[in-house]
Amino acid sequence: MEKKGLIQVYTGDGKGKTTASIGQAIRAKGHKFKVCFVYFFKNLKDFPYSEVEVLKGLGIETVGFVPQHPHFYKNITPEQMREDCLKALEPIKEIFQKGYDMVIIDEIMIALQDGFLKEEEILELLGKKPDSLEIILTGRGATKKVIERADLVTEMKKIKHPFNRGLKGREGIEY
Amino acid sequence: MEKKGLIQVYTGDGKGKTTASIGQAIRAKGHKFKVCFVYFFKNLKDFPYSEVEVLKGLGIETVGFVPQHPHFYKNITPEQMREDCLKALEPIKEIFQKGYDMVIIDEIMIALQDGFLKEEEILELLGKKPDSLEIILTGRGATKKVIERADLVTEMKKIKHPFNRGLKGREGIEY
Repeated sequence: MEKKGLIQVYTGDGKGKTTASIGQAIRAKGHKFKVCFVYFFKNLKDFPYSEVEVLKGLGIETVGFVPQHPHFYKNITPEQMREDCLKALEPIKEIFQKGYDMVIIDEIMIALQDGFLKEEEILELLGKKPDSLEIILTGRGATKKVIERADLVTEMKKIKHPFNRGLKGREGIEY
Repeated sequence: MEKKGLIQVYTGDGKGKTTASIGQAIRAKGHKFKVCFVYFFKNLKDFPYSEVEVLKGLGIETVGFVPQHPHFYKNITPEQMREDCLKALEPIKEIFQKGYDMVIIDEIMIALQDGFLKEEEILELLGKKPDSLEIILTGRGATKKVIERADLVTEMKKIKHPFNRGLKGREGIEY
């Protein structure tokens, strides 16, 4: 088994990016990997993303940053978002040094897409990856340079989604 | 919350189809859904897909069919594969009737792609779906009619994969 950890990216407009990263965490956990699930833009008080509790229960570390995204919380300014996202980078770099086999950073590509983080800040973060660590980034908006830097990239392409015919996000399915 | 269960399909040549279905199972489980994970072409004796054990430990039912695929087991004939895949359909229909909220049928699209199951057999199987049941199908090779029949379809498109530069499948990552 090759021990070098890679950088995986799940991006695109289709469903399955966060769930793929969760499935990857479960698979890794099954092999006794030490896994940390870092997530952006999930306010568990308002949206009970119940997968976080299940991961915790399995002994997977979970750490959330910047719980509120202006898409749902209209009173947050872009400046505040920028500041909060920037502030998250240092603790994530510290997490990289804690001996995990796998660190997932869920929805961080959204911060890039929405201009709250700059491409060079993401690349600098990835530069801090220990050789043995597998990093998984998810979210729409992966840029060309992030894709170049990554080892494995899947675009989740929406072929069909019930939101397009007006169905709302469903508990247990979308969150 | 809309209680009608949908049909989801994860297909395409990129990584993330099975893991997305596992993540969906974890999310659903977090909401106390009753989940069954049915899988094709996984021989756990030779490839310890450790996620199956983790799902079991969470109280998710797991059922495997047709463990050997000729891609890995060269002595199996297409006729034998056809027979074994056909034989799996009846027990899966029975599983549909057991009151699950979600049934995942992992890699069944491969059976379609490789000609072990016919499109009309898959469509007939989907016709047995109770209204409240969410069904998730994964694997390369979803056909136009299966996509038409489904409510939510994501194509996992390979943008970059380390297999293409010779890296072997890694324990904890690919299985």
